[in-house]
Amino acid sequence: MIWYKNQSTDDDIMVSTRVRLARNLAEYPFPRVISKTDAEKVKQEVFGALEQEKELFVNGMHKTEMADIDKTGRQVMVEKHLISSELAAKNDAAVVIDAGEEASIMLMEEDHIRIQVIKGGYDVKSAYEQADKIDNAIERHCAYAFSEQFGYLTACPTNTGTGMRVSVMMHLPALTMTGNINKIIDSASRLGLAVRGLYGEGSKAYGSLYQLSNQITLGLSEMEIIEKLENIAGQIKKHEVEARNALKDNKQVADKLWRSLGTLHYARSISSAEAKSLLSDYILGRSLGIIDETIKQNPIELMVLTEPANVSEISGKADMAADERDTRRAQMLRDSI
Amino acid sequence: MIWYKNQSTDDDIMVSTRVRLARNLAEYPFPRVISKTDAEKVKQEVFGALEQEKELFVNGMHKTEMADIDKTGRQVMVEKHLISSELAAKNDAAVVIDAGEEASIMLMEEDHIRIQVIKGGYDVKSAYEQADKIDNAIERHCAYAFSEQFGYLTACPTNTGTGMRVSVMMHLPALTMTGNINKIIDSASRLGLAVRGLYGEGSKAYGSLYQLSNQITLGLSEMEIIEKLENIAGQIKKHEVEARNALKDNKQVADKLWRSLGTLHYARSISSAEAKSLLSDYILGRSLGIIDETIKQNPIELMVLTEPANVSEISGKADMAADERDTRRAQMLRDSI
Repeated sequence: MIWYKNQSTDDDIMVSTRVRLARNLAEYPFPRVISKTDAEKVKQEVFGALEQEKELFVNGMHKTEMADIDKTGRQVMVEKHLISSELAAKNDAAVVIDAGEEASIMLMEEDHIRIQVIKGGYDVKSAYEQADKIDNAIERHCAYAFSEQFGYLTACPTNTGTGMRVSVMMHLPALTMTGNINKIIDSASRLGLAVRGLYGEGSKAYGSLYQLSNQITLGLSEMEIIEKLENIAGQIKKHEVEARNALKDNKQVADKLWRSLGTLHYARSISSAEAKSLLSDYILGRSLGIIDETIKQNPIELMVLTEPANVSEISGKADMAADERDTRRAQMLRDSI
Repeated sequence: MIWYKNQSTDDDIMVSTRVRLARNLAEYPFPRVISKTDAEKVKQEVFGALEQEKELFVNGMHKTEMADIDKTGRQVMVEKHLISSELAAKNDAAVVIDAGEEASIMLMEEDHIRIQVIKGGYDVKSAYEQADKIDNAIERHCAYAFSEQFGYLTACPTNTGTGMRVSVMMHLPALTMTGNINKIIDSASRLGLAVRGLYGEGSKAYGSLYQLSNQITLGLSEMEIIEKLENIAGQIKKHEVEARNALKDNKQVADKLWRSLGTLHYARSISSAEAKSLLSDYILGRSLGIIDETIKQNPIELMVLTEPANVSEISGKADMAADERDTRRAQMLRDSI
C-alpha cells in the first residue's frame, strides 16, 4: 500500500521509511555522459531483467517513460515520493513502479539504477529487505559496476560503497514550535546524519515534516547504517514526545491548533504550504488531546493529495493557475475535513 | 428596546442613533467646581423632577448611584453605551435609565444633566423627540442655566447653544477595507461633523464601527443640526454600499471573511477587539452574499455582550483576568455562532 495511505494509528511521528540503493551497469558510462543509444540500452537491459523477475511484484508492475507523460503527471509522482524531481526533469529517464506503489526502480537518474522502497510508518528493516531482493534480482541478469575496494560505484562519490540511502520521514511539530528542532539538526549532523525538509536537500520542512537520512555510505555495512539511523530516529522521537508533553496545557497552543482546524473548515483559498501546516496542527492537536474532532480523511494523505500537481490531476486540468488550485485545494479540504 | 437588540434586518450600515442634550441648573456651579453638598442637591432636584414626570417612562425607570456599584458594573453600562466613561469614573455621579434602556439621564457628569436617548438603527428624529420630551419634563420643575444670547450654558463652551450632540453609529467595513474611510473622515470634518471610533473621541473604530456626530452646537437650530447629519450620514451610506459592490467578486475578500467565521467557530481565545472584527466580517460576508451560513445571535449584540465587563458580568466574576476573559469570550462566541 502506498506509504501515505498506510499510516499507523498509534505512531504519528514516524510517517514513512525509505531505502534507496544506487547501482550502475559496468559496461556503460554514467548517465551524465552517456549517449542516447546507450541510455536506451541500459533501460532495456533493466526492463528485461525485471520482466524475468516479475514474481517479485506479486500484483504486477508498471513501466513509465518520462517522455510519455506531461509535467503534471511527472510532478504527481514526485509529490507522492515515487520518483525524485531529478528523474522527473529528464526526458530519457524511466521508472518501474510495483502495483502497491512501494517499490520504484528509477532508471537513468543520476545513476543508471536507483531502487527505492518506501513504506508507511517506521519499517526500516523490511524496506531494506524488499530493496535488497530487487537488487539481487536485477544483479542476476546485469553486471553492476562494483569494486572490491570501494563497493558499488556511483556517479557521485558520496553514494559510493553501499550505494544506500535510508531515510525516515518524521513529523516533528512540537520540536518545530519550540524551536528545539535546530539543536536536533545540529546533533544529527555531528553524528553523520542529515535532517532535511519534505523534498530532501534544500527543501523546507512544510507541515513540520523532516527527513532523517544517513550521510555516509562508505565504510559501514548496510546493517550498521540502518541501526545507527534507527537509534537516532528513536532518540528524536523521544524528544518530540517530551516537547509535546510540555505543550499539553498551553492555552495559546490550544487556541492556535483549534484556529487551524477552523481555517481548514472555512477558508476558500489555501496554498499547499499552508495546507500542510494546518494539517500538521490537526495531527498535533489530536496527539495532545486538545482537538476532539476527527476529520474524515487521513491528514498525511491529504497533505499529498493537496500538493499542486495532485490537485491539478484530481481536477482533470493540467494547466491550472495557482489561485485556481488554491481555491480547489480549499474545497477539497472542506470536503475531507 | 436596547439599541443593540433592535437591529434592522434590512439595514446593516446604520447601527444606532443617539441624541444627547447637555443641561445645567442655574443655581449651582458646574460639576467640576461644585461642593459635595450641592452635587447631592442637584441630583435630588432632578430625581424629584423625574419622579413627578414618571408617566414619561411607561415601563418604569431605574436610578443608579455610581457609588453603589463596582467598576465592572459601571463598565457594563459604558459598554452598552448607556452611560459615558466620564460618568463611570465619578463617584458622586448617578444615572436614571428607563426600563427599555433607550433613555438615560446622567447626573453630575461634565454637566449637571446629560439626557441621552439611544435607539437601534437609524431614527434621529424620534430619538430627538424622546430626548426633547424628557428635557421639557425636567424643565417644568427645574430652572436651567440659559442665556437669551447663547442658549443653554454648559461646562465646556463647545456644547453651549443647543447643548445637543447627535450621533449615528455606522458599520463601514468596506470603506475600512478599501482605505477610503480616511477620505470620508476628512470630508465630514470639513462639513463640521466628526467621525470617531466606537467609544467616541480618541477611540479606535473596532469592528469598523464609526460614530458620526455634529461638532457645532451653536448658531444652528436642533432641526438644522439633525438635517445636516442625516444628509451626510446618507451620503456615507451610499459610499459604503458602492464600496461593498466593488468587493462582491473579490476572492481574497471572500476567503478572508470565511476564515473569520471559521475562527469564530473554532478559536479558544479571542480578544474583544478581534471579536468585533470577526463579527464585522460576518456582517459584511452576509451583506455581500458571500457567507450563506446564519449565526444564531445578532452580531451587533454579540459585539456588546463580548466586551470585557459584559463577559465578566455574564460569567459572574468581577475580577476576571484578561486571558480568562478571552477564553470565556471565545466560548460564548462558539455557543452563539
